[in-house]
Amino acid sequence: MAGQKGVSLKEVADKAGVSTATVSRVINSKTVVKGETELRVQKVIKQLGYRPNRVAQRLRTTRGASKLIGLLIPDIQNPFYVDIIRGIEQYAYAKNFAIVIGNFSQNEERQKFYIEILKSESVDAFIVAPFPGMNEYVKELVEEGYAVVCIDRGLANMDLDVVKVDNYQGAFDAVEHLINVGHTRIAHISGNTLIPTTIERISGYEAALNKYGIAIDRDIIVGRNSDHKSGVELSAQLLDMSNPPTAIFTSNNLLTLGALETIHSRGLKIPEQVAIVGFDDMYWAMSLNPPLTAVRQSGFEIGRITIELLHQRIADPTRPFVSIVLKTELIVRNSCGFKLKGM
Amino acid sequence: MAGQKGVSLKEVADKAGVSTATVSRVINSKTVVKGETELRVQKVIKQLGYRPNRVAQRLRTTRGASKLIGLLIPDIQNPFYVDIIRGIEQYAYAKNFAIVIGNFSQNEERQKFYIEILKSESVDAFIVAPFPGMNEYVKELVEEGYAVVCIDRGLANMDLDVVKVDNYQGAFDAVEHLINVGHTRIAHISGNTLIPTTIERISGYEAALNKYGIAIDRDIIVGRNSDHKSGVELSAQLLDMSNPPTAIFTSNNLLTLGALETIHSRGLKIPEQVAIVGFDDMYWAMSLNPPLTAVRQSGFEIGRITIELLHQRIADPTRPFVSIVLKTELIVRNSCGFKLKGM
Repeated sequence: MAGQKGVSLKEVADKAGVSTATVSRVINSKTVVKGETELRVQKVIKQLGYRPNRVAQRLRTTRGASKLIGLLIPDIQNPFYVDIIRGIEQYAYAKNFAIVIGNFSQNEERQKFYIEILKSESVDAFIVAPFPGMNEYVKELVEEGYAVVCIDRGLANMDLDVVKVDNYQGAFDAVEHLINVGHTRIAHISGNTLIPTTIERISGYEAALNKYGIAIDRDIIVGRNSDHKSGVELSAQLLDMSNPPTAIFTSNNLLTLGALETIHSRGLKIPEQVAIVGFDDMYWAMSLNPPLTAVRQSGFEIGRITIELLHQRIADPTRPFVSIVLKTELIVRNSCGFKLKGM
Repeated sequence: MAGQKGVSLKEVADKAGVSTATVSRVINSKTVVKGETELRVQKVIKQLGYRPNRVAQRLRTTRGASKLIGLLIPDIQNPFYVDIIRGIEQYAYAKNFAIVIGNFSQNEERQKFYIEILKSESVDAFIVAPFPGMNEYVKELVEEGYAVVCIDRGLANMDLDVVKVDNYQGAFDAVEHLINVGHTRIAHISGNTLIPTTIERISGYEAALNKYGIAIDRDIIVGRNSDHKSGVELSAQLLDMSNPPTAIFTSNNLLTLGALETIHSRGLKIPEQVAIVGFDDMYWAMSLNPPLTAVRQSGFEIGRITIELLHQRIADPTRPFVSIVLKTELIVRNSCGFKLKGM
C-alpha cells in the first residue's frame, strides 16, 4: 500500500515497533474500544501522514453494507458445481456479496474444518451442499443465526432454504428413453448412496423399469463414490459380466466421463455395443464420441436462485423456509441409439 | 455450538445483550487488550458455564500453527486451474494450510476486490495467477510482508517465486507435429495477449513455422479472450476464410472445446477436413471425437510445487526467489492425422 508522501505500511510498522499485519489490522478494525497497541499505531499513522490506497479505503467504507459469503463445494472437479459457482458469482455482485470458496473434496472432516475456518474469519452467511454426517453442523450454523442456503440437497431432519432439481423425474426420463429405443438390460452406476440426490435418482431409475414391467436386477445397480475413478472401475465391472448390460445410466458427469474412458479404451462402439445416458449435461457434450445424450440441470440457474434466497433470508431472517425444485431436461444426442433391430 | 450443560451460544448472547456474532468474535479473538463488551461477554460465558464444542476448540488451538492461504484463480471454468486447485489442496493439508479460493473470472477489478477482502480477513499468504494490470497489487502484497507464490506466470517487473511450464517449447512441439504430418497452413487461436503465457505460446508457434521455412500469415493468428466463447467464434472466423487453414493450434482448453463445438456443428471431419491440437490436456480427452492430440501440462504438479515453495517462503522470508519451469508433454492421439496425401 503506497501512502501519501510515499510512506509505506512497513515504515509505519517499523516506527510503531509492530508487524505490518498489526498495522493492517488496526486500519481495518471495526472495534471502537482501543488497546495500547492500537493507539500507538494510530499515532504513528498520523505522525507519518500515512494513507492507505483508495481501493482499500472504498472497501472498508462499503464492507459494512457488503456481505462475505462462505461457499462450501463438495468437489470442484465436477463441472456441475463449476456451473453453480458461475451462477452464484454472476448474481452475487449485484447484491454486494463477496464469495469465498472452500472445496472439501467430498471429505466430511474437511467440510467441518472449512465451516470452522470461515466462521472464525467472520463470514456473514453460508451456501452449503451438505455432505453425509454434516446435518448437525449445518443445523448449528442456523441456530447461531447465520443465513444458510442449501444447494443440490437439503437436510433430512431440518427445514431450510433449498435449491435443487427434480432428480427422480430426470432419472426416470433418461431410463424411459433407453427403454423407448429398445433396451431392457439397463445398468445404473450410482453415486454415494448417503447423499439424498443419489437415492432420488435410483428411485427414478427403478420407477421407469417398473412402468414397463422390466424386472429390477440388483447386480447391475452399482455405486461407490460420485467420482471419475468410480466411473472407470464400475463400468469395467459391468462390462466384464457374463451377461453384461446393453445400456448404462450414470448418476453424474464424473461417472459418465469415467465410463466413457473405459468404453473407449476397450474399443467398444457407442451406442451399437453399449449405450450410455448421463445425469448432468456438459457444455462440451456435443464434442464427445458420440455426442452424449444427457439429463440437463442448470447449475447456473441454481446459483442465481441461491443468491436470491440468501438475499431474502438476510433481509428477513424470520420468513418461512422454501424448497425450490427445478425441472430437468433430457437432451437427446447420439449415445443411446434408435430402435434396436428385432425388438 | 452446543456447550456444556446444554448452554447455547444464543443464550450467552441474549444474557450479554449482544449478537451471537459478537460472542463468537470474543471467543475467537487473539487480542489481549479487552474492551467493555468483551469483558461483559466473557463474564456471561463464565456464569453460564458455556463451552464451545471440541472441533472449534481444536481449531483455535491449532490456528496459531496453521495458516490461512488465499488462492486467487482467474477462471474456475478452466479445467487446468481445477487441476492446480486439486494439487494445492492435496499438499496443503500436510503443511497445515487451509485454502480459501477467490475466483475472479478474468476480471481485473474483481481480482483487486478479492485481494482486499482476503487481506481484511487476515489471510496469511497468497497464491496468485496475476492478471493484466495486477502487477502493482501483487507487488504491494510482497512489500507488506505476505508470502506470495505466482502460478502459471510471474510479473514483468518484479522477482517472485513462480511455478509455470515451458510454454514456448510446448507450443513449438504442437506446431512441429502438425508440420510433420503434412500441414503448412496452420492457424493459431491465442488467448489474451496481455498475459505472458499467451505471448510465449505465440512465440513457440512462430518458431516452429520459421524452422521449417513456412511464412507466417498474420491473418490466421487470431486471439481475444482465453474462454470458450472466443474459441467458438474465432474458429468460425478462420473456417469462413476463402483460403481457410487445414489445421488449428489452440492456446488453451476452453478455446479447444469452443473450436471443437464449431467444427462439429458444421459437420466437418477431424482431422480429414481440419486438424486440431490444443495446449492443455484434459482427463476426458480420449473420449472426445476424435481423441484429442494435446500439450499436457500438469496442473496437479504445479499445485504440489506451489505449496512447497510457499512453505519454504514462510519458513524463510529472505531466501532467494526461484522460478520453477516444468516441461510439457505432447500427447499424440488422433486429431491431427498422419502424413497427408500428396505431400
